[in-house]
Amino acid sequence: MRVLGVDPGLTRCGLGVVEGLPGRRLRMADVGVVRTPADAEVAERLVLVERGIEEWLDAHRPEVVAVERVFSQHNVRTVMGTAQASAVAMLCAARRGLPVALHTPSEVKAAVTGSGRAEKAQVGAMVARLLRLDAPPRPADAADALALAICHIWRAPAQSRLQQAWAAARRAPAAPSPKGTTSS
Amino acid sequence: MRVLGVDPGLTRCGLGVVEGLPGRRLRMADVGVVRTPADAEVAERLVLVERGIEEWLDAHRPEVVAVERVFSQHNVRTVMGTAQASAVAMLCAARRGLPVALHTPSEVKAAVTGSGRAEKAQVGAMVARLLRLDAPPRPADAADALALAICHIWRAPAQSRLQQAWAAARRAPAAPSPKGTTSS
Repeated sequence: MRVLGVDPGLTRCGLGVVEGLPGRRLRMADVGVVRTPADAEVAERLVLVERGIEEWLDAHRPEVVAVERVFSQHNVRTVMGTAQASAVAMLCAARRGLPVALHTPSEVKAAVTGSGRAEKAQVGAMVARLLRLDAPPRPADAADALALAICHIWRAPAQSRLQQAWAAARRAPAAPSPKGTTSS
Repeated sequence: MRVLGVDPGLTRCGLGVVEGLPGRRLRMADVGVVRTPADAEVAERLVLVERGIEEWLDAHRPEVVAVERVFSQHNVRTVMGTAQASAVAMLCAARRGLPVALHTPSEVKAAVTGSGRAEKAQVGAMVARLLRLDAPPRPADAADALALAICHIWRAPAQSRLQQAWAAARRAPAAPSPKGTTSS
């Protein structure tokens, strides 16, 4: 499985491509950051983010795009830019028919470090170890994008089983309601 | 001036095209709503919003796109969808080289009703009166999109003068700093 991880942001949008399967060795295909000028209009910055992500999709042909799930409870000053950049990432993927998977920051941290409350440095160190890199990728947004891709590779089988169970439950005839069984 | 107003949202994205100039009669060219299914994935919904906005841009060829400025202080349950839909609207416009103008809800209300705290119904009624419609456009998102376009037509001259003043100030040589004038 080849996954593009996206750590969304307007100032720095982290991108990382990882290949692998659960229980097998992981391989980093590429890592980087799309940057946009802080003094540009938001609309222009979104166009630059779109262009960068499109280039990565063209170059790496991932099968899935894993994007950090953005919560509005985060820092209110940065959450809007994050939400906007994540919208562009999701749009680019879905427009090509690629599945989009969302993972929360704590899911990602838990997947790569074992703790949902790990520090940035721990995440970077574990990403470097898992991908056999000489040092944690810099900036942190790049390491986080790789962590998202790794998280997706490891979580995908469980997510897929859950989705199949939900789909089966929706297809199954509704169970008799308690009311139905007790009415006279 | 022909303006596409966008009241961004994933469930209902209001769109309205108004032609006019400050101090002249306004004319509504079109109004409507792009809807996306609430049970679809966010990524799919963003693709549907993009498709809808692209169709409107193709059909109406606006010179400017006016989008509601989203604040993260709003209702946290809906703000993410609004931010994501507004990102798509800004992206569609900027990708075509169209200027994007952002107006806050209170700027829009103040422009069309005289009060930044007007109720939805007042906005709808004033939009209907200004555009000589038989009734306020429904749903409210459609009326809000027209109000955004009207607000832009009326505010654009002042915004343009401000932007020219800022640009001139940036080009001008920096004034001597207080420190510079007092140092020995």
